[in-house]
Amino acid sequence: METLTISDNKGIRLITLDRPNALNAFSSLLMDELAESFLSAEQDKAVKVVVLTGAGRAFSAGADLADTSNRTPIHGLAGMLEAIVDFSKPFLLAVNGLGVGIGATICGLADFTYIAEGARLRTPFSSLGLTAEAASTFTFPNLMGRQKASWMLMAAEWIDAEQAIELGLAMEIHPVDKLLPHVMVQADKLAKLPLASLIKTKSLIMDPVKSQMKESIKNENAGLDELRGSPANLEAIAAFREKREPNFDDC
Amino acid sequence: METLTISDNKGIRLITLDRPNALNAFSSLLMDELAESFLSAEQDKAVKVVVLTGAGRAFSAGADLADTSNRTPIHGLAGMLEAIVDFSKPFLLAVNGLGVGIGATICGLADFTYIAEGARLRTPFSSLGLTAEAASTFTFPNLMGRQKASWMLMAAEWIDAEQAIELGLAMEIHPVDKLLPHVMVQADKLAKLPLASLIKTKSLIMDPVKSQMKESIKNENAGLDELRGSPANLEAIAAFREKREPNFDDC
Amino acid sequence: METLTISDNKGIRLITLDRPNALNAFSSLLMDELAESFLSAEQDKAVKVVVLTGAGRAFSAGADLADTSNRTPIHGLAGMLEAIVDFSKPFLLAVNGLGVGIGATICGLADFTYIAEGARLRTPFSSLGLTAEAASTFTFPNLMGRQKASWMLMAAEWIDAEQAIELGLAMEIHPVDKLLPHVMVQADKLAKLPLASLIKTKSLIMDPVKSQMKESIKNENAGLDELRGSPANLEAIAAFREKREPNFDDC
Repeated sequence: METLTISDNKGIRLITLDRPNALNAFSSLLMDELAESFLSAEQDKAVKVVVLTGAGRAFSAGADLADTSNRTPIHGLAGMLEAIVDFSKPFLLAVNGLGVGIGATICGLADFTYIAEGARLRTPFSSLGLTAEAASTFTFPNLMGRQKASWMLMAAEWIDAEQAIELGLAMEIHPVDKLLPHVMVQADKLAKLPLASLIKTKSLIMDPVKSQMKESIKNENAGLDELRGSPANLEAIAAFREKREPNFDDC
Repeated sequence: METLTISDNKGIRLITLDRPNALNAFSSLLMDELAESFLSAEQDKAVKVVVLTGAGRAFSAGADLADTSNRTPIHGLAGMLEAIVDFSKPFLLAVNGLGVGIGATICGLADFTYIAEGARLRTPFSSLGLTAEAASTFTFPNLMGRQKASWMLMAAEWIDAEQAIELGLAMEIHPVDKLLPHVMVQADKLAKLPLASLIKTKSLIMDPVKSQMKESIKNENAGLDELRGSPANLEAIAAFREKREPNFDDC
Repeated sequence: METLTISDNKGIRLITLDRPNALNAFSSLLMDELAESFLSAEQDKAVKVVVLTGAGRAFSAGADLADTSNRTPIHGLAGMLEAIVDFSKPFLLAVNGLGVGIGATICGLADFTYIAEGARLRTPFSSLGLTAEAASTFTFPNLMGRQKASWMLMAAEWIDAEQAIELGLAMEIHPVDKLLPHVMVQADKLAKLPLASLIKTKSLIMDPVKSQMKESIKNENAGLDELRGSPANLEAIAAFREKREPNFDDC
């Protein structure tokens, strides 16, 4: 793997987003490698739980807007999200720092999210002339209620780690140097329990929501396709390049 | 409009329930005018968001029991609720004071509800021999969990503004004189963002719940039709007129 | 009734799990008698609300693993759960002490749960090589969000009464000697309201969720059937008998 570091210990597979110089942005390659990692963890009988975190100070800056690789995606965003949603074993997420876009919405896909003190999250979709992804239009209202989810997904403001806890996006907050050690302790508790029970219980919990999660992902992706290249999206890109505030008055 | 005051500013349409002497009760005319206002805001390209509030000390005393106009409704309660549920742009609600019945349940229909310090809410349906409306039997459990929603909708007790925040019925609490100015600031943030993104994101959030919201409204209205004129409803009306406590022992 | 004590007062039927020496564990007989109690309260026009609590220091230790009666169940777990889910009148639960297994998951079935200071709850399913029941894989995520519900149902840890409040599993916490008196006051408030309104409102609240609750119960019971007698379940039973920690490494 070029963009991830992977290590196994006592049934726990630790996947680390490892592009610290790019703030672990989701490039096309990273999305494919993360999809492969979940698919492989699903098949590997030695893996009982997966922990995902980021290398360096950020968790992830989100979609890599600087990705000019022009490679043909194997799984792409949709395939990566499907691999995560279909992952049948416990999935713990350690948000070690800043999370933007998919670096924030992935909190709603994890079974258990833990966040570092000082971390901040933002779903900037509206401010880019785009819309939300990763089933966040379904998972966020379920975690925090429709009003708070609508504000977070529409208003594109930053929230801090304490707010992430209040909103139910994350379960626990820890100092950054203690975050991953703590998440590994929690992962170890699960890994010591019977895997068949964990899988069955996760499956029962996901049963009533999984098809809507997939439907939301499909509709979000269609919405993104619709809005990419729209006047507002072009204005957001132009403003970013010209280092000025965007003006959406005519959009 | 006879019962509403409407003003536009920078893409924000401010609708004010304007029957302060009747505590902004929802008369037949007010329901029709509010329905028209949402339908017109939906069509008007200059409108990006709607803010709803009430004139005077109360937000709304709910259905106008003193309405003896005998006019034929154009939209009625069902049409007004449909216009609100189908409204595709952001809808902010500033509960400036007392909210009873539809003046409380409308909190669950708004995308964003803000409440004034000192405001109180009550859904008195059971105590009138009636049942809940405005999709509150669906939106309240989703915002606060089934237990708290059941208590609020069945027990007919008052809650104060702080409880409305704890229950997730409202997002923020502000002193009454600062409430509307703050809500206008929040509305302005949204109005400056690309409308297509706001509409798409709201639509994605509403997708998984809108058909159930409409189904709940339909079933609630059928329940209300069933219970109007029932022994308990007649006893509640008689007790109100005779200024005594109702006695539902034989109902 | 051998396992329950039942008393009626002013429309309130108080059902007390009355096997204090067995910590009110759900034996086959108790499940049948509790099913009968709900079915009979449903039919009895003098009953307006039901309150359920436990005798002695515990609320319930859950399924009675020591039940060697070999009697043929009439309703069984599935029938008891169906009688509770279909109960159309308000159902208040007073968790007076320790609640394990069904003694914890029943909190999600009650309309209103109240808990005693010092009470503790645990859903130990994974640690027994089993999985969750009583629709908790649906009701818990709806009350506390998917992350916290997944942790509670998978990790098999104890939670205390304060956590039960934070998680939304219970609405109020009271000193144990004041718990039942308070719940009876709340029950009395409901019993004084028109029963037709309470039933209609509960029905409207349950409408959008009841079929999924029943589907979850069905799938959970199938999961339990699958996992009973599995290597992990056998190891858990063996470890319990041998008074040692179970080792699920090879399960």
